[in-house]
Formats: sequence, C-alpha cells, structure tokens
Amino acid sequence: MATLGLIEYETASAEVRAVYDDIMATRQTDYINNFWKALARDPVTLRRTWANLKQVMGSGSLDALTKELIYLAVSVTNQCSYCIASHTAAARKAGMADAMFGELMAVVGMANETNRLASGYQVEVDERFRT
Amino acid sequence: MATLGLIEYETASAEVRAVYDDIMATRQTDYINNFWKALARDPVTLRRTWANLKQVMGSGSLDALTKELIYLAVSVTNQCSYCIASHTAAARKAGMADAMFGELMAVVGMANETNRLASGYQVEVDERFRT
Amino acid sequence: MATLGLIEYETASAEVRAVYDDIMATRQTDYINNFWKALARDPVTLRRTWANLKQVMGSGSLDALTKELIYLAVSVTNQCSYCIASHTAAARKAGMADAMFGELMAVVGMANETNRLASGYQVEVDERFRT
Amino acid sequence: MATLGLIEYETASAEVRAVYDDIMATRQTDYINNFWKALARDPVTLRRTWANLKQVMGSGSLDALTKELIYLAVSVTNQCSYCIASHTAAARKAGMADAMFGELMAVVGMANETNRLASGYQVEVDERFRT
Amino acid sequence: MATLGLIEYETASAEVRAVYDDIMATRQTDYINNFWKALARDPVTLRRTWANLKQVMGSGSLDALTKELIYLAVSVTNQCSYCIASHTAAARKAGMADAMFGELMAVVGMANETNRLASGYQVEVDERFRT
Amino acid sequence: MATLGLIEYETASAEVRAVYDDIMATRQTDYINNFWKALARDPVTLRRTWANLKQVMGSGSLDALTKELIYLAVSVTNQCSYCIASHTAAARKAGMADAMFGELMAVVGMANETNRLASGYQVEVDERFRT
Repeated sequence: MATLGLIEYETASAEVRAVYDDIMATRQTDYINNFWKALARDPVTLRRTWANLKQVMGSGSLDALTKELIYLAVSVTNQCSYCIASHTAAARKAGMADAMFGELMAVVGMANETNRLASGYQVEVDERFRT
Repeated sequence: MATLGLIEYETASAEVRAVYDDIMATRQTDYINNFWKALARDPVTLRRTWANLKQVMGSGSLDALTKELIYLAVSVTNQCSYCIASHTAAARKAGMADAMFGELMAVVGMANETNRLASGYQVEVDERFRT
Repeated sequence: MATLGLIEYETASAEVRAVYDDIMATRQTDYINNFWKALARDPVTLRRTWANLKQVMGSGSLDALTKELIYLAVSVTNQCSYCIASHTAAARKAGMADAMFGELMAVVGMANETNRLASGYQVEVDERFRT
Repeated sequence: MATLGLIEYETASAEVRAVYDDIMATRQTDYINNFWKALARDPVTLRRTWANLKQVMGSGSLDALTKELIYLAVSVTNQCSYCIASHTAAARKAGMADAMFGELMAVVGMANETNRLASGYQVEVDERFRT
Repeated sequence: MATLGLIEYETASAEVRAVYDDIMATRQTDYINNFWKALARDPVTLRRTWANLKQVMGSGSLDALTKELIYLAVSVTNQCSYCIASHTAAARKAGMADAMFGELMAVVGMANETNRLASGYQVEVDERFRT
Repeated sequence: MATLGLIEYETASAEVRAVYDDIMATRQTDYINNFWKALARDPVTLRRTWANLKQVMGSGSLDALTKELIYLAVSVTNQCSYCIASHTAAARKAGMADAMFGELMAVVGMANETNRLASGYQVEVDERFRT
C-alpha cells in the first residue's frame, strides 16, 4: 500500500487535511484517492502537486473533458497502470462516453505507431514545419 | 533526407501516386509532407498507414481538433521531433490557438510528472477504479 | 514466477552458485533476490550483469547512496515495477531516509514534466550549452 | 526558435520580467536560457514552473548537486536533447566533475538495461520488497 | 477485466465473430485472447487492428519468428506487461527456444543501455551514418 | 562534438588504443565511430561496454543480422537519433536489405501501437500466458 504508506483523513495533520478538504470541495466528492494519501507523507509535494493540478486542469481555452482525455492519452503512452485506472475514472466523470474512449485509444495507438515510423525512417522535418 | 530517401510525386509509381492524390484531396492541400514521401519506399506500409490515419483521425465522437491535440500530446511525451513539428502544424490548421497550445503543454507536463509520482510511490489502484 | 522460472541455490550449477556466493558476500546478506534467480537461466548473462553492476555501483566519485538514488530515478521514469520495488529497498539499505525519498520523487516528477515542456515547445539549445 | 517564439527581457511584460528577475537573482547569473523565454508565451505556466523548480531543486535532505545529477539521469533516460544539454551545464555549475559524469552515465545505462531484463524475464516482486 | 469488459464469442455480433473466426483460422487455434475480446467493444478498431497485424506479421523478407522476436523486444522496452506475456507465448509458438529468449533479452538490455550512453554523452552522428 | 569531447586514435592512451584496436579487428574496419571516441573519456566504461557488446552481439542461437534488427527496433522505440543512424548502418552491413528494413519498421510501429491499446484498455493477462 505505497512506499511510505497512506495517510487517512482521520490521522492527518491540519496541513494535510486542508489539502484533502480542498480536493473534496473542488471535486464535489467525499473520496480521497490513494494517490493523494500516498503523497501526503510529503506535505510540501502534496500541496504543490494539488495546487498545480487544480490550476492546470480547470476549464480554460480547453474544456475539462478534453484535458482529461489528454491526461489519459499521456498515461497510456507511459504505461502507468495507476494513472490509467484513475484517469479513466476521471475522464468518465467528466463526460467521456464509451465511443469517445474507443476513439481516444485509436488515436493514441496510431500516434505511438507513426512516432516510430517517422523516427525509424529518419525523416527530416519539412521546411514549412520548422519554427 | 530519410533512410531510404524520399519519393517525389513526379517519379512515383501509380500505386504511390494514388495515395498521394488521396492525401491531397482529403487534406485539401497540394503538399505532401516528408513522412509520406519516406514511407513511399514501402508502398504497402504507405497505403496501410494512410488508410488507418484517415479512418482514425476523422470526426466521430471526438472532433478533429481534439484528436490532433491528443496526437500532439503523445508525440511530445515520446519526444519525437518530426512528429512534434508536423502535428503542431496540423493542430494549428485544425484550429489550435496559442492559448490552447499552452494549456495542452501544461496538461502533458503535469501528466508526465504525476505518472512518475504514482509509480514511484508504488500507489496501489483504489478498489473503485478497478475494472 | 518469471518466464523461465527461478533457480534456487540448492539446485544451481557450480557456475551459478559462484555468482550467488559473490552477490551474498558483496552485499553482506544471505538473500538472493528473484531478479538474479531468473537471470540464472542464462548463466552468461547472469555473470556479465552481476560483474557490470558490481563495477558500476561501487563507491567512486559518486558514493553508493547517490548511485542508488539515480538507479531509482531511472526505474521510476521507465515505470519498471520490479525495479522500483527492489531499488527502493536497496536505496533504503544504502541510507535513503523518507525525506530523501520524497525529494527524489519530487525531482524525478519535475524532470519528467520539464522534459516534455522543452520538447513540446520545440526549444532550441542555447549556444552556450552546445558541446 | 521555439513553437511560439522566444520573449526577450527587453520586450517582456512586467509579469514575465518579475520571473526573469527572480531566475537571475536565484541563479546569480544575468542569463535567461531559451526554455524560460519559450515558456514566457504562457505566463501562467512560466510562473508556476519556475516556482515549482525553485522549491524542488533547492538544498534539503538532498544537496543541490545530487538533485542536478538526478535531473540529468531522467533527461537522458527520456532522450530529451534540450534537457540533456542544459542540465549537463547546470550539473557542472553545481560541481559535477568529469569523473562524476562518467559514473552517472554508467549508472543510468545499467539501470536502463536491468529495467528491461527484469520486465522481460517477467520477474515477480520478492515478498520482502512488497510495500 | 478490461475497461469496457470482454466480449465472448457466444455473445458477439456477426461483425465481431467474423474477426474472431479469422483470428482462429489464421492462427490455427480455438482460443481468442483477452486483447481481442477487449478491443471488440470497438468493432472498427478490432477489425482494423487485426487486418493490420495479419498483414504485418506474416512471412515476407523477414520470417515469422524474427518478427515475433522484434515484437517482444519492443514490448519489453516499453514495459507493457500484457504484451510481454502474450508475445512471449507467441514467440515460443513461432519457435523461440529458451536460448534464443536469453540472447534476445541480452540484446534488448544492451540496446537500452547504449541508447542512453549515446544520448547522455551527446554524441554527434558520424558523417558516414548521415542519410 | 560530445559532452567531454572525442578521443582520436593518435592521442589515445595505450588502454584506449587497445579497445580501438579490438573494435577494428573484430569489425574488420579501420573506422572507429563517434560513440566509442566519446566513451573513451571514461576508459573503464569504454572497455566494459565494448566487451559486453562483443559478447552479446556475436552469433549464437540468434544470428548477427537478427540481433542487429532487434537493436535497431529498440533504438527506434526509444527515439535515440544517434543509435538509429549508427545501427541502421550496422544492420545494413550485416545484410539488412531495404525490404527487410521496411518490414522491421512496420513491426516496430505495430508493436508500439498495440502496446498502448493493451494497456489503455487495461486488458488482464490471460491465464494461459501467466508464468
């Protein structure tokens, strides 16, 4: 159950509880998932990571669902089991229907394939794509 | 200029030209980028890859812009220079504004970070996230 | 229990036992972990890998703890579950305190994030950083 | 020169200049490297990334040099050219001698090798390494 | 048991059954592995992926065993547990003896090591290797 | 030209020259590529890496060409530019025809794609594939 163990709400310090409270309020849930309970062993990292995530994942030029799809695409590419499981749940909560999931996986698969074809064939960047 | 060289339209076989023609018609452009010209050395792979990409990237449950953002997110995660350059251009053509690009990068960065925090802390998947 | 199974000390050949003996003597332990027992199916690879590791991980310009932290950083980046588990144990044995682990993870997370920001933004290497 | 171009100090907004000023003061240099000038196109990401990096990379349980070595180890594992170039420079500035660099690379190489041996042989995590 | 669940032959649509039938006929088996049963939730991706795999993995300039070894090498490098397990089985069916497996892993390990040494030392491509 | 620079034969120590001589004799060439000249700054790593490579890449249960194809497959998956360039040359020298290269890339592409489909769909390993 995590390298340094998990910290439950009941036994958490005030500092950790404040982050837990904000997670639950922001996500409108009474559930704190294991990721945060594991990070809570290092309150500085817990607070920074949550503050960053809250800033980055909110609606902006991209809506919340699109951001969750991107998050899942990266997690799948990196083969992170925990992240695939948790962000599949998060994406569904944000509105990802089964058909969207299927298309997302198809795009992620193709991108991983053509990334290797492009590099394997040593294709030079086209003049018009250069910055 | 690519491991096996590039094949220009003028010197392409009828089989390769047919793919080039379909790429240009589908994308409404008269430009074939180096990726396809490199793949053309293996017409079977050229035809299959283009047919797949055409099927996968078209509008469906996810719109074309969202798919391009996902493609770019994967390419950045994999550090594929050619793909980052070409799919940044493709995403812009599909409507990615600068602010969207900034948010996309922020999400990709965070996902790559938390993927390692989750795995590094050996966090066990929550019961409710299990399939 | 591993693709080719594990080889226990009792049933090991003299050649494999010699490596096991050296591992136990070097690490001052009577425990051989599964990694070596799995590799033992290919004695040439077992012997070479152990000899390399012994040479690489010993104290030099970098001390043994620093080397273990680096090993764990790489394993986390690559999402290798076995390696994360075994090298977390090894790093602790070498002196990694919980606070060090927390800082290590924070650095690994940030590096994975900024690696993608740098590539995603297609940042050109500064003249002064070129070799 | 970066997807969205670089922002020089002279033409930067007050918000961006404040970050640049803090980078230069913290690092005791008058040089801003391209990474920050590229990120400056998205001031929110610029400010957040710099604040995080400043917090994470300072001396704590691990000294600044060790953290730079870990950063470089991750960047090499991920094959990020820009990051390898810039963090090699940063590590040297923090005290990395040539012999340290050689040992760092040797450890990074070995870890990448044994990560694949462990996964490829499908080695099960030893009971004693489980969390 | 997979994000969208598995589809068994008995409850599959005619479209999915046609793919299952072709997989069993091509592989001369009566077993459909979980990968296909999971993909079957998205029949378009199921059919495309199987058609591609059938085309790519057949004997050509490279024999079927060599292709399976390459597939396993990639799966190990990417740390994909499912793929390592299933393609180890596939490679064995195609004729991979234990000694071949040992050599395959040794090559995969070395390549992953020297990939990082080359990038970490920032080695410039030799003039004679340029395309 | 590499982080620590390259060491040419003329100015190499006797220790480094001995490795260079063995590389040239083994490969029947008078050319030492940049990788070795860069590693030569750390003679211990140079000698160990060459000895390992010589042992691993020689003909055994797998022939030399097959091993070069595997090496290239890994290098492409990892997006290592130097390694792709040098091992494409090495594979050709070992007998890789253009058609083989095309098939190799097709397999590498597919494996990278299905690795993500398997993980993304969270497919559980089939009972019969478990070790």
